Amino acid sequence: MNQPFASAQDAEDAFYDAFEAHDLEAMTAVWEAGDAVVCALPMAPLLQGAEEVRGAWEKLFQHDQRPEIMVHHVQWLEDGDLALHLVHEQISVPGMPQAMPPILASNVYRRGDAGWRMVMHQASPPPPPQGQFGLQPPGPPVT
Amino acid sequence: MNQPFASAQDAEDAFYDAFEAHDLEAMTAVWEAGDAVVCALPMAPLLQGAEEVRGAWEKLFQHDQRPEIMVHHVQWLEDGDLALHLVHEQISVPGMPQAMPPILASNVYRRGDAGWRMVMHQASPPPPPQGQFGLQPPGPPVT
Repeated sequence: MNQPFASAQDAEDAFYDAFEAHDLEAMTAVWEAGDAVVCALPMAPLLQGAEEVRGAWEKLFQHDQRPEIMVHHVQWLEDGDLALHLVHEQISVPGMPQAMPPILASNVYRRGDAGWRMVMHQASPPPPPQGQFGLQPPGPPVT
Repeated sequence: MNQPFASAQDAEDAFYDAFEAHDLEAMTAVWEAGDAVVCALPMAPLLQGAEEVRGAWEKLFQHDQRPEIMVHHVQWLEDGDLALHLVHEQISVPGMPQAMPPILASNVYRRGDAGWRMVMHQASPPPPPQGQFGLQPPGPPVT
């Protein structure tokens, strides 16, 4: 056990290790305890509080297939006891197509008495192929 | 013009005012200048840098229908010169159904020489109705 995490990056490494290993205890150890934590997985309702967040990972980890996750940092914002890492998660699952587009995730960490712990994870589903949806200029008015 | 924003909340108020009013100059003034800013709108590609972010709002504001946005704070994390507000955005557009589920958005602000400015906005599409998708336990193995 690597706790307490000495940096936000240490907590992040442990988060993705636990995610890949489907290790519920290691995942729980990454998160802050208490009611402040929030977790939004793609297309799933917002989870609030350590217990609800743990329950969601528990369900997710019931799946047999363990993912492989490549993490690419897009942006880091760190100040004082707060750190935000915006990342692209390239997730591949054995038996599924390799070409899944990356998921955009904000990982927020906070330093407390127990070192750096995750306090927020917001993962957005990837957008559809360009041109299908999104920021298109409006068409002509319907008459 | 209310700049420089004295607090993250002032910048947030200005962000949603500009969004509702389709006011591109006011929206641009909310954001930090430069390459550090990132913006992810629901189901749209990630935008990076002030110029790309401005271009996306410009396209969005070409739509005639101006939205009304109710913002509910879910979580605040603030330390030093960094502030993260996790919010639910209840967006209604004249002529569209009123019952759109809320969008989950992380709004991140940073204090610099020009006061508090938005540096990140990540908005996730709402999940489908419960039970259709998401954190369901796996079914029986396919044999």
